[in-house]
Amino acid sequence: MSGVMFNRVAFIGFGLIGSSLARVMRRDSLAGHIAVCARSERTLNKAIELGLADSITGDAGKACADADLVMICVPLGAYAEVAMTLAPALKQGCIVSDVGSVKQSAIEAVRPYLPVGVHLVPGHPVAGTEHSGPEAGFAELFDGHWCILTPEPGVDKGAVNRVAELWRRAGMTVEMMSAEHHDRVLAITSHLPHMIAYTIVDTATKLESHLQQEVIKFSAGGFRDFTRIAASDPVMWRDIALANKEAVLEMLDRFGEDLADLQTAIRDNNGDWLVETFARTRKIRRGVIAARQDKTEEMKLAGKQE
Amino acid sequence: MSGVMFNRVAFIGFGLIGSSLARVMRRDSLAGHIAVCARSERTLNKAIELGLADSITGDAGKACADADLVMICVPLGAYAEVAMTLAPALKQGCIVSDVGSVKQSAIEAVRPYLPVGVHLVPGHPVAGTEHSGPEAGFAELFDGHWCILTPEPGVDKGAVNRVAELWRRAGMTVEMMSAEHHDRVLAITSHLPHMIAYTIVDTATKLESHLQQEVIKFSAGGFRDFTRIAASDPVMWRDIALANKEAVLEMLDRFGEDLADLQTAIRDNNGDWLVETFARTRKIRRGVIAARQDKTEEMKLAGKQE
Repeated sequence: MSGVMFNRVAFIGFGLIGSSLARVMRRDSLAGHIAVCARSERTLNKAIELGLADSITGDAGKACADADLVMICVPLGAYAEVAMTLAPALKQGCIVSDVGSVKQSAIEAVRPYLPVGVHLVPGHPVAGTEHSGPEAGFAELFDGHWCILTPEPGVDKGAVNRVAELWRRAGMTVEMMSAEHHDRVLAITSHLPHMIAYTIVDTATKLESHLQQEVIKFSAGGFRDFTRIAASDPVMWRDIALANKEAVLEMLDRFGEDLADLQTAIRDNNGDWLVETFARTRKIRRGVIAARQDKTEEMKLAGKQE
Repeated sequence: MSGVMFNRVAFIGFGLIGSSLARVMRRDSLAGHIAVCARSERTLNKAIELGLADSITGDAGKACADADLVMICVPLGAYAEVAMTLAPALKQGCIVSDVGSVKQSAIEAVRPYLPVGVHLVPGHPVAGTEHSGPEAGFAELFDGHWCILTPEPGVDKGAVNRVAELWRRAGMTVEMMSAEHHDRVLAITSHLPHMIAYTIVDTATKLESHLQQEVIKFSAGGFRDFTRIAASDPVMWRDIALANKEAVLEMLDRFGEDLADLQTAIRDNNGDWLVETFARTRKIRRGVIAARQDKTEEMKLAGKQE
């Protein structure tokens, strides 16, 4: 299957995810015209330089005029302002979608501004790296990962199918669920891990400075993986933490209780509890590998087969 | 430089680290004879099958008789018993070393049993994977990583140099420090990250079962990296947590305080605090990459240079 899916696509914001999707559209010629709107001149120039934009503008309304698909790719905290600005320019039948990591707040920020006859299809491609900006993108970013769509009941099925098809072209498997359910699942699989990683690296930054140098030197013992996660975009993660506040705080509470149990077990020399707990978590790892959510691991296993 | 460094080497315990070091010895012909001692028949047979052992035995004393180097590669909790068993068999001038992740407790467990004239050179190659067992080993495991030696003051310099040279042959950079200092540094770079990873995966295992399936499905959002760390050997990590109890509990306390600050900031919608904290941690990441402690990252950067 090939051919243009959307005559005109407008990207509002153009970082890692947006520019990666634009690369997919270019590769497979899915968009007749790609309009990129961003606040910074640097980003706009980069979009041209990378050959990903047919037109650039700092004006969201101008980018969205006559667009068939508007893809919002800004941090969640900017959604309401962006929606307010672009809404008057939208034509009937236009699809508005996004790539944000929290879906309830995304819907609440955008929907009030949209005119009747415009279709809101919120989405979340569960893929990314710790790098930011349009130059960090690549077309294969989405390949083999899940994309979650959270349209509200009653949203036009044709519009939902077109967004689903777009992400399938990017190599993703599309899953539908309610925004509320999405936010709860992602709170544990993504938001909690990021909060924890930021915190542990923060704990290290507060150590006496001579110890800090050694922390970096000997980071291969486990710490290194946390620094990678904690290198993600600060503004984006501030917005995620606040947009999914309730679920994130609940998961942090649960985690805090489990951490207290661990501290008690170590303090009491409760070796049995420790072995039991550490062994139980291995099962989840096996689940992750079986579900093919770790490609490196799969490759390693494949290479080892005799 | 090549040639036999030790006429007879005895491995007590033969998992990921021990078998990887034996592979280095075979590759570079560093050992005249490799004796492997392990409790399980399976491990002993594997050592023969892999061509890494010249002799196998379940009797530590037998393995160590006439050995020039004894390398203890069992979990920390088994050190005292192992040391007691093998000590009477040691010849004068023999070097006893180990690969354990906590050094003060290692010294305390082993030294009391060693006869005068035997050299104790405790070591910690800071390298590993989440896989266990002799079949998980590979000679390149140590390449480009640090090895920390923590000999007590007054230990024979020649013995220390020979152990240092062995790890250099394995591709490691050798660093000397006190056991106490080692345990504090590793508490933050390795022990804390593992405790946290085990806990977060444990928190996920306690979710309602339908949510658990989805956690595995959508683990690519950050959780996956934690499951990898939390798949490490449970007995080994029980022993590390208990052997380095004081430093691990101190780091867990510090981390707990920082986590409470984060929770307060989210609860209070303190976006400035969040951005500041999340941005600060990025600096440590840059330090890790600059210190060449993340090879994948370095390769990526090299590939991107224009």
